Amino acid sequence: MPDRIYLDWNATTPLRPEAKQAMAAAWDVAGNPSSVHAEGRQARRLVEDARAAIAAAVGARSQDVVFASSGTEANALALTPGLRRGSAEPGRRLLVSAIEHTSVLSGGRFSAGAIQTIKVTATGLIDLDHLRALLADGPPALVSVMLANNETGAVQPVGEVADIVHEAGGALHVDAIQALGKISFDINSVRADLVTLSAHKIGGPKGVGALVMAEGVQGLEPLLRGGGQELGRRAGTENVAGIAAFGAATTAAMDALAGDAMRLQALRERLEKGLMQTPGMIVFSADTPRLPNTTLFTVPGLKAETAVIGFDLGGIAVSSGSACSSGKVQPSHVLAAMGFGKDLAQGAVRLSLGWSTSEVDIDLALEAWRKLADALLRGRRNTA
Amino acid sequence: MPDRIYLDWNATTPLRPEAKQAMAAAWDVAGNPSSVHAEGRQARRLVEDARAAIAAAVGARSQDVVFASSGTEANALALTPGLRRGSAEPGRRLLVSAIEHTSVLSGGRFSAGAIQTIKVTATGLIDLDHLRALLADGPPALVSVMLANNETGAVQPVGEVADIVHEAGGALHVDAIQALGKISFDINSVRADLVTLSAHKIGGPKGVGALVMAEGVQGLEPLLRGGGQELGRRAGTENVAGIAAFGAATTAAMDALAGDAMRLQALRERLEKGLMQTPGMIVFSADTPRLPNTTLFTVPGLKAETAVIGFDLGGIAVSSGSACSSGKVQPSHVLAAMGFGKDLAQGAVRLSLGWSTSEVDIDLALEAWRKLADALLRGRRNTA
Repeated sequence: MPDRIYLDWNATTPLRPEAKQAMAAAWDVAGNPSSVHAEGRQARRLVEDARAAIAAAVGARSQDVVFASSGTEANALALTPGLRRGSAEPGRRLLVSAIEHTSVLSGGRFSAGAIQTIKVTATGLIDLDHLRALLADGPPALVSVMLANNETGAVQPVGEVADIVHEAGGALHVDAIQALGKISFDINSVRADLVTLSAHKIGGPKGVGALVMAEGVQGLEPLLRGGGQELGRRAGTENVAGIAAFGAATTAAMDALAGDAMRLQALRERLEKGLMQTPGMIVFSADTPRLPNTTLFTVPGLKAETAVIGFDLGGIAVSSGSACSSGKVQPSHVLAAMGFGKDLAQGAVRLSLGWSTSEVDIDLALEAWRKLADALLRGRRNTA
Repeated sequence: MPDRIYLDWNATTPLRPEAKQAMAAAWDVAGNPSSVHAEGRQARRLVEDARAAIAAAVGARSQDVVFASSGTEANALALTPGLRRGSAEPGRRLLVSAIEHTSVLSGGRFSAGAIQTIKVTATGLIDLDHLRALLADGPPALVSVMLANNETGAVQPVGEVADIVHEAGGALHVDAIQALGKISFDINSVRADLVTLSAHKIGGPKGVGALVMAEGVQGLEPLLRGGGQELGRRAGTENVAGIAAFGAATTAAMDALAGDAMRLQALRERLEKGLMQTPGMIVFSADTPRLPNTTLFTVPGLKAETAVIGFDLGGIAVSSGSACSSGKVQPSHVLAAMGFGKDLAQGAVRLSLGWSTSEVDIDLALEAWRKLADALLRGRRNTA
């Protein structure tokens, strides 16, 4: 697709060359990693090398990385009622922030009655006072708070969240899918007990994820049972090519992180400066720490579907909220949780940038936006 | 790895060229299949084309194919207490044959107390009288019987099983992973309500599977919840490259089936004729319908681990039972169910053939076997 401008990196990052190479190299490894012959051992090595790369990227031990088929599966695996830190009491309820991914909101293996929602502020950050109040009022909890939101890009104060949760005897799961490769963190700096990662957000293939545990976390119950793969924590023949590519993409993303982040932040500033020229422009979470590559915006009266189609016809791929809920015509649950009404929440458009994004891309996107905005304003005048 | 002979096709089939091509073509599709822009729609098309190919291969409707990350996950999804045919009562217990894959034996979402085991005969076929007796004595059941066994290759009389199960008001799940591409069948000819398939057994990538439903099956509960993927039956961003490759491998495997089967059967006969020259040779399920490519054998006193390592050192990849349980030194549950004692069950070696297997491969494997058998017999004489 020549001449297209791709500004939907938060939904799916294009595959990195290193990931392609790793995948192609895995093609000719016929063995099953559970087989003991040379072909099997070769496949096993690909999986274990990837596991070491991912462990290194987030400061965990290799044996604490469990591969899964997506972030969704890793989240489902993480949200297990029996989970606990060392000798602490297992979580008997689940606290999730209101802006979590739908796979976390669905609560994993907690029953609907055992799930409580932590409020967020208008800027899109978790309400720590509400978290404290919820923790004080009930049995030990597993808490799930994402590191960075996939729609606004808002970076949550997870270290602070961890201290509050641990103080109350709970355990913390951090969905870091959107943060990996975009901001620096490790499992110890965020003091998380469990971290979810996904390959396709960092230039690995779609359909590979991982759950990473901190040392001493107990009580993980497998969701898929059968063979003894993943040390008995996740049965099923491994996606060897995908896992190898995930490992390669992770290493490449970590190497590129520092340089990318500064460049993307500058491009994002250029983008938002341009957007702000439209009367009534709202950039969500603009005044909070955000991922360097993400802008979620709207103007009153905008319909996100119209804007996404308009951009697409103009050769630019953008998103209305997350891909996981796009296609459904319903307002973003993230913006609703931040207190925005349906009118604004259903008009939010997300532009997310990546390594190949250039100033020209930004300027062309702004040009496309101005046309859309003009048409919108004309429409308003005509109906006034 | 030059000069290696690969005779472990039942654990993992080498990737077909068509699958490699489909995977590489998917690399440059950056979109997420849930995104509405052109890149997203392109990814969606890859997934839906693969779905149509797999549906066609087993005579099902596209909308009844649910992609999963492995046969294990598809089996776990299938074994749902609420499942039923049309307006029949949902299964309140699960009957599994004693020779099912470990992912079926683990029972999916049925509690341990709700799982009953159907006996098999010494030839490795399901005991239909025992099935009838179990069905007659209790509430409606979901029954899971594999089409072909992964260790012996024995082909089960699933059409007959289906009639018995349906007569009793139950539903039938058929794990057809090992049969796909090796023998002809479709979901209607076997009269199954649910069929599990896996990509890596037919020359697709590891880490992709599918559950296929017959028309009118009700009550499938998602195992992974969150996004609305797979018509709400399985959340998580799709493994687009893997699914595209699964589709391509399926079409290629179906095209090759008739020719491959006859050639492989002839090679297998050559293999078994050679093996039978060893005194005391036992070929399991030899007198029952079997997959054309599979031989499971032993001689008294053989240790499978020793044999697998011996073959491997001789440049030949073979297996002791299934890859999923290899690595664990424990006798095959399949042979135990067929009534063989631990001594024989822990000595079984599986050779499984595929499209690149030649007469030379067979002859070299027989030569390697004769050396192993001689050493074994010498060892016996020495300890006698």
